[in-house]
Order: sequence, then structure tokens, then C-alpha cells
Amino acid sequence: MSASHNLFDDIPRELPAERIDVLLDTPGIRLERIISLGHATPPGEWYDQARDEWVVVLRGRARVRIEGETEDRALGVGDHLLLRAHVRHRVEWTDSAGPTVWLALHYQSSDRA
Amino acid sequence: MSASHNLFDDIPRELPAERIDVLLDTPGIRLERIISLGHATPPGEWYDQARDEWVVVLRGRARVRIEGETEDRALGVGDHLLLRAHVRHRVEWTDSAGPTVWLALHYQSSDRA
Repeated sequence: MSASHNLFDDIPRELPAERIDVLLDTPGIRLERIISLGHATPPGEWYDQARDEWVVVLRGRARVRIEGETEDRALGVGDHLLLRAHVRHRVEWTDSAGPTVWLALHYQSSDRA
Repeated sequence: MSASHNLFDDIPRELPAERIDVLLDTPGIRLERIISLGHATPPGEWYDQARDEWVVVLRGRARVRIEGETEDRALGVGDHLLLRAHVRHRVEWTDSAGPTVWLALHYQSSDRA
């Protein structure tokens, strides 16, 4: 049993690209810590994922657009969102003044098992 | 698609027992928000779980004892811990001055799949 780790450790001051650290990876799930610093999904691109994703912002601020919705979802600390498989979405904006720390859990939803 | 929710909403001021809100529940995973306010596992009792559990403290402070270890694990905000299936553990202490908010993810580990 290793020592505990902290989600807010090892946050780089500069971040040329979004950083993803994989915390857990099994056939059934993948848990990631994501750090953004002003990053967004490139214009015109959408995430279209085979599995459900539960995501929470633990530090910072972001805006997510879900295809078909008329407004971005504004996410602050503690806000979480369930993105069902194949619900296309984009990160429209993340704060460039400081890091945005996310947890993202990818998993097989029950109704697709 | 429902609106986003916040992990720090609906935290009761008084809490006779630890509170568990289930955020996700599928055959493969169970994600819980747990709120403690001075609660601990009753003396002499241990958790002995069939699945792996990843746990993180998002607010507050706690101490967890893992069977066979000589010291508690002190957990503050952001600290996370992987508790393998059947690794017996207890919550020795949580802060009674304010709520401790945990996320707990129960999942089937790859080596038991």
C-alpha cells in the first residue's frame, strides 16, 4: 500500500497543452486528473465518446458546450456533469489566470452493459 | 441532460450519522459523496469490502487506519487513497468543527475481473 497522494500536487505553472494524469485504469473504468490552463477544445471539434463520462471541477472554472444546447454549462468548483456516451461536447473555455483541475471518470453505463 | 450539480451543495449543518449520496450506480461502479462531521467507524469495527475503493477528501480532514499499518493516514483536501478489496480499514477520526466531504468510488479491479 503506497502513501496517499494529493490531487493538487504537481500542478505545473506553465502548460503548453492540457495535462492528463491517469489515476485508475481498468477494463471497466478510467479515472483521470485533468489540468487545463486556458485550454479549450479546438474550434469545430467535438468529443464523441463510447462510454459515459462523469466530470467534476475541483479547482478553477470552465465552460462546456453540449451539442444541441443553446448555452454553455458554466462550471465552478464542485460542479459536476454527466456526459452520456455519444453525447457530443466541447470544452469552450477554461480560466487562463490559474489552473482548472478536473476529475473525469469514464465508465460503462448500465444500460449499455 | 439535467443541469449540473455541485458536490458542496446540500451539506447539512447537523448530521446525526454520516451521510451518503449515491452519484452513480451501475453494475460496475458506485460513486458516492460522503459527508462526515466528527464521525468515525465504531470502535473495533473494520470495513472489509469485496471491491476496490478509491477515496478522496474534498473538504475537511480525516484519519484512516489500514489494518497492519502502525499509523493512521492523515487525509486533507485533495488527498486520495486506494483501498484494495479486502484490505480492512477504518475511519479513525473526522473533523468535528466542520464537514468532511469525500468522494468514494467502488469498482471492480482489473485483476479480479
